[in-house]
Amino acid sequence: MPQLSREELDDIYAFAINLGTSAGKILLDAAKSRYGDDRPEERAHIEKENAVDLVTQTDEDVEAYVKSQIAQKYPSHKFVGEETYSKGASRDYLINEEPTWCVDPLDGTVNYIHLFPMFCVSIGFIANGKATIGVIYAPFLDQLFSACVGRGSWLNETQPLPLVRNPVPPLPVTAPSGCIFSCEWGKDRRDRPDGNMHRKVESFVNMAAEIGGRGGKGGMVHGVRSLGSATMDLAYTAMGAFDIWWEGGCWEWDVAAGICILQEAGGLVTGANPPENPATAPIEEARLGSRLYLAIRPAGPSPTESGRQGQERTVREVWRRVRDLDYSRPGA
Amino acid sequence: MPQLSREELDDIYAFAINLGTSAGKILLDAAKSRYGDDRPEERAHIEKENAVDLVTQTDEDVEAYVKSQIAQKYPSHKFVGEETYSKGASRDYLINEEPTWCVDPLDGTVNYIHLFPMFCVSIGFIANGKATIGVIYAPFLDQLFSACVGRGSWLNETQPLPLVRNPVPPLPVTAPSGCIFSCEWGKDRRDRPDGNMHRKVESFVNMAAEIGGRGGKGGMVHGVRSLGSATMDLAYTAMGAFDIWWEGGCWEWDVAAGICILQEAGGLVTGANPPENPATAPIEEARLGSRLYLAIRPAGPSPTESGRQGQERTVREVWRRVRDLDYSRPGA
Repeated sequence: MPQLSREELDDIYAFAINLGTSAGKILLDAAKSRYGDDRPEERAHIEKENAVDLVTQTDEDVEAYVKSQIAQKYPSHKFVGEETYSKGASRDYLINEEPTWCVDPLDGTVNYIHLFPMFCVSIGFIANGKATIGVIYAPFLDQLFSACVGRGSWLNETQPLPLVRNPVPPLPVTAPSGCIFSCEWGKDRRDRPDGNMHRKVESFVNMAAEIGGRGGKGGMVHGVRSLGSATMDLAYTAMGAFDIWWEGGCWEWDVAAGICILQEAGGLVTGANPPENPATAPIEEARLGSRLYLAIRPAGPSPTESGRQGQERTVREVWRRVRDLDYSRPGA
Repeated sequence: MPQLSREELDDIYAFAINLGTSAGKILLDAAKSRYGDDRPEERAHIEKENAVDLVTQTDEDVEAYVKSQIAQKYPSHKFVGEETYSKGASRDYLINEEPTWCVDPLDGTVNYIHLFPMFCVSIGFIANGKATIGVIYAPFLDQLFSACVGRGSWLNETQPLPLVRNPVPPLPVTAPSGCIFSCEWGKDRRDRPDGNMHRKVESFVNMAAEIGGRGGKGGMVHGVRSLGSATMDLAYTAMGAFDIWWEGGCWEWDVAAGICILQEAGGLVTGANPPENPATAPIEEARLGSRLYLAIRPAGPSPTESGRQGQERTVREVWRRVRDLDYSRPGA
């Protein structure tokens, strides 16, 4: 495929920021229609019938809006969205070398239903198979995260990411101790010893337990956080607020924008499942579509190692403590 | 003790809102000094030496500021703050019938160190032993939660809580299924089968697991959230974003403001530890200072029960699934 020029990319980036902001506003307006003071009778009806249906409708409306805006401005670009995909015939990974928009109109759907502020729209633009532009907008928090390859990562277009950056702090020598560990319980709650829930919980407890505990696997992380949005998890890892994010089960539209923002900020993203030898296995960039992710925040050098070395050391320490998760693609 | 008049209370409320907002601004300014573009050399030094010391200093500074402002305006009122308490000789519960300010200058300290936005100042005012005024300000999010007995609960002084309120939705018939469950891993990470970490994790897994799982204890909650701030957990429960918050180990200054805001919004707060007979035990208001809390969001009536009945039903369903936690007062 022909490379996009710098100017073309910058145009697409500006368009994506506007699109993310206006799509987020639609989400927020729909949320406010549930608690505004107008038309109480209609609202009573809506809440009683099914807040979930209302949210599903908003989800679909926002995806249709985003898709049509893109089709109008860039008719030659491909579009992969959560709603389109769920209703489509194929369960394959649909992203190839063509310029492709990868969009989640509403990440953190459960949060949105309950009006917990950690929900957002996620717009990724992929060129030659690589996440090249990312825009995440959380309208209730009015937080906009954005990045374009070569242009850095930003909060609200004014604050470069990671926030602490002159210099960017190294990862703790004792990582995962001293780190904030971000993880999610997910939807797979089957109570089977070898199910994903129990594999996750065993991993969480290893990361949390005191040093020396759990047969040497205790990681004594500084904190365990669960927000209910993979996209927000990635955004806060790019910001430097979370040191480690480990998750299985998300889709490419949940993470395309976030991975771009994380990488452009200097973060690392690889696979969640530990390789046979965590101490020596190569640390490869996560494949979009793999559904299994381990992200490490941007890190600066310490007197004894580069930022990248600190990130790789942290990856290996996480791999040593987590179990492999079982999230294959339905069509694979 | 003489009752405070409506006018006196309203004056104290207005003062507390101003105080919380200005204290929060000090927190945010100190955070920004860690990532601003001025004096990079000084900042490099600070980050390298110890972000934790810097935060401890800010914590103490903000408490000193809040304490002095109160002493100036209300010299007869008592003051109980986290920093004062930790350095004091007594580990007793220090709140009696006198008008008392109960203040956490910085809740979510670990978040603040890492610059994850879920940190806040918490200012509670207690009259005749009861949380009467509460102000929580999260400056990074610019979210102000406030309440005064008889005046309702508010977000940013303009939006009444809970957000969805015309009508306030009932709790799900299937609760805890359908609910967002807020909980924290805490600092006690001892890897002992009967330690608090394992008791908590067992409870979390019961709440999360599929219906029918865990020997009938599976609660299939809609989501599990951990923010790392008891105060923010309570604020979001008052908002209606979280349905259930269950936690042990927090202190009165972590929860005094939040309990006032939750109760004034129509929420219920009782003890975290299950009584001998969860199905029939009386549901008593949590004692401030008990360190063990179970909070349920504001709830409206359904065709078959009152809001309070739905809350009590949910309390019993949680008690049936959680283990008792061991957090006594050090001086008790």
